[in-house]
Amino acid sequence: MALPRWLERGMADLFPAGETDDADQSLAARLAEAEAAARPLRVKFGIDPTGSDIHLGHSIMFRKLRAFQDAGHTAVLIVGDFTARIGDPTGQSATRVQLDGKAVEANARTYLDQLRSLLDFDTPGRLEVRRNSDWLADLDLPRLIDLLGTATVGQMLAKDDFSSRHGDGKPIALHEFLYPLLQGYDSVAVNADVELGGTDQTFNIAMGRDLQRHFRQRPQFGLLLPILPGTDGVRKMSKSLGNTVGLREAPLITYSKLEKLPDAAVVPYVTLLTDLDPADLPRDPRQKQRAMALAVTASLHGAEAAHRAQADAATLVSGASATESAAVPAASLATVNFPAKAFYLLSAVGLCGSSSDASRQIRGGAVRLDGDKLTDPHQCFTAAADLDGRVLQLGKTKFLRLLA
Amino acid sequence: MALPRWLERGMADLFPAGETDDADQSLAARLAEAEAAARPLRVKFGIDPTGSDIHLGHSIMFRKLRAFQDAGHTAVLIVGDFTARIGDPTGQSATRVQLDGKAVEANARTYLDQLRSLLDFDTPGRLEVRRNSDWLADLDLPRLIDLLGTATVGQMLAKDDFSSRHGDGKPIALHEFLYPLLQGYDSVAVNADVELGGTDQTFNIAMGRDLQRHFRQRPQFGLLLPILPGTDGVRKMSKSLGNTVGLREAPLITYSKLEKLPDAAVVPYVTLLTDLDPADLPRDPRQKQRAMALAVTASLHGAEAAHRAQADAATLVSGASATESAAVPAASLATVNFPAKAFYLLSAVGLCGSSSDASRQIRGGAVRLDGDKLTDPHQCFTAAADLDGRVLQLGKTKFLRLLA
Repeated sequence: MALPRWLERGMADLFPAGETDDADQSLAARLAEAEAAARPLRVKFGIDPTGSDIHLGHSIMFRKLRAFQDAGHTAVLIVGDFTARIGDPTGQSATRVQLDGKAVEANARTYLDQLRSLLDFDTPGRLEVRRNSDWLADLDLPRLIDLLGTATVGQMLAKDDFSSRHGDGKPIALHEFLYPLLQGYDSVAVNADVELGGTDQTFNIAMGRDLQRHFRQRPQFGLLLPILPGTDGVRKMSKSLGNTVGLREAPLITYSKLEKLPDAAVVPYVTLLTDLDPADLPRDPRQKQRAMALAVTASLHGAEAAHRAQADAATLVSGASATESAAVPAASLATVNFPAKAFYLLSAVGLCGSSSDASRQIRGGAVRLDGDKLTDPHQCFTAAADLDGRVLQLGKTKFLRLLA
Repeated sequence: MALPRWLERGMADLFPAGETDDADQSLAARLAEAEAAARPLRVKFGIDPTGSDIHLGHSIMFRKLRAFQDAGHTAVLIVGDFTARIGDPTGQSATRVQLDGKAVEANARTYLDQLRSLLDFDTPGRLEVRRNSDWLADLDLPRLIDLLGTATVGQMLAKDDFSSRHGDGKPIALHEFLYPLLQGYDSVAVNADVELGGTDQTFNIAMGRDLQRHFRQRPQFGLLLPILPGTDGVRKMSKSLGNTVGLREAPLITYSKLEKLPDAAVVPYVTLLTDLDPADLPRDPRQKQRAMALAVTASLHGAEAAHRAQADAATLVSGASATESAAVPAASLATVNFPAKAFYLLSAVGLCGSSSDASRQIRGGAVRLDGDKLTDPHQCFTAAADLDGRVLQLGKTKFLRLLA
């Protein structure tokens, strides 16, 4: 039996990957069985409410979940609220911040709001949002010992990150061994048929399979998607690396970041973030980048906004007059005294509230002129004519075209 | 500061063993501090209610606890009822049998009953009996993660038995790492000043110290006693090795087992199980054995019973007529038909209810003739004269002197 193309698209790995009629060994067989029984598959994906800004790197998961939804299955989102409230008791882990219940709930709501454009929230039976506190809060010591008894120390030390830390003699706190088990127990709690994850989730998803067997459930399939490279085209898209495209960023920003994406990342982006056939992309690298950027922006913000963003970006780059671009407001330099230092310029055109705020923003790397970062608040501009038609940018959403 | 002699007697190790005025580093200082504050020390010892028969190997702990009681301190007995009810979920451990609540409670009661002769149950404030279900039943996941976070994998793998198993590639289930932490948490729950244990408890007691520090308590001292050798004089006294002296055995059995103890074990027995000064023992090995056996039997059953047991044992060994010994009833062989097989003999003299019961007892190793085990139910005795004056024994408490 073959897997449907919507499912295979962009897939990095699937386990077990049996090509049999056995619905425990072959996902195609499990799909056929579900269809025959008119029972939707339960496709689990865990979200971590310690942060709330979703970027494209996350969205590839939700696109796959959406494809399952569109094929009639149930996306089961697990909000890791309980784990987020515990955090890392040793304070060693930067990624496991302890948050109070309110912050967790606020993050979860913001997170879910952003998913409204990606997932089907409306068709009955297509989405379940579950909080893992529902079952983890009741996990008492006997059940926890039972859970711990399903895995061995050797098995845990075989996990990539544990293995390298153990090898390097770096301490591993015992509770760290618990998290893969708790994630696995989530699969038991929601009786998952499939768990979706990045390629770094193989171990945890396999743990879920073991636990489901232990609790006499049918083990889930692990469906792995690649890790999306960031806008640098190389490293994992991650907020801390500053190479993300956020879902809430303006279409122009999104498009502008994407059309500069290094060539090697263009096909993965098209495969993972659009419905285009990569074979249909233009040959010319520049055209290819633009087609990808347009399609990805459209998938996030709609076709109309994407086309406007493409036009605006062209205008920005070509340096044509601001009247050509509806997206970029103009600011007159008539009232600015030259020579003008950068911090004064920003406050004089109203991009910042004060000169000191402007200095801070420049030092913080938030200010660009025609896309080039300004670094020195005291950089001096001698005449208005030197700045005429250029675009001053603050952060990711504020643009002004300067007019002499 | 020096430790009192009653405390040092038989001690295998003490940690920390500082000889300072610091009551966190020196047990002598902690004792002095307690005395000055008229506050008794809390001396913890854990008992495992998966079995119920106490033998001499256990009693050395209770003798030390009693010494603390007599010096005005509080013995805190922790009944591991919660852990016994969980058992070993993997079924791998022969020592961690899972018992239901009733069996645990029955064992605990039987166990505590036997301690009445060893501990001071009556003086107010000298004894606390606590069940660890009191605090472990409420241990939820966040507190458990906190607990696990206090220790590292490397630390656990340094423990003797884990280390050797890990080295040999034998699996260690994750929940096994939890037990030392739970035992340590018991110390927090009862705010122990001292934990008593065998030399195999160093790791677990040190874990208790770490946890007490984590929960901002003063860390306990670890007071270790040696492992008592069994009646073979070599291996640890243990029911499974059949080398025990039980607390509920008859004085005659106790004395008889003890007076055959190999010479090397005599001084440890005197040190750990009596108040005699080993220097006062007779030089002659046989006399030394008998003095030890008398003193140990007296400490368990009182001086009168011990002296009677010594006299009875002498009678048995010398083969004098049964009338000389009040403890061993006589049985006439007049009604027995010879040649007689062993199973028939036992039922004929009334030691067993039937020939088939007698066969079973012989096969089970419960029958002795003059102390030598019978193994074959069909062993044949040709004439009554061959058995005249000999002692037939069933189990540990039934004796008959055979008379032709």
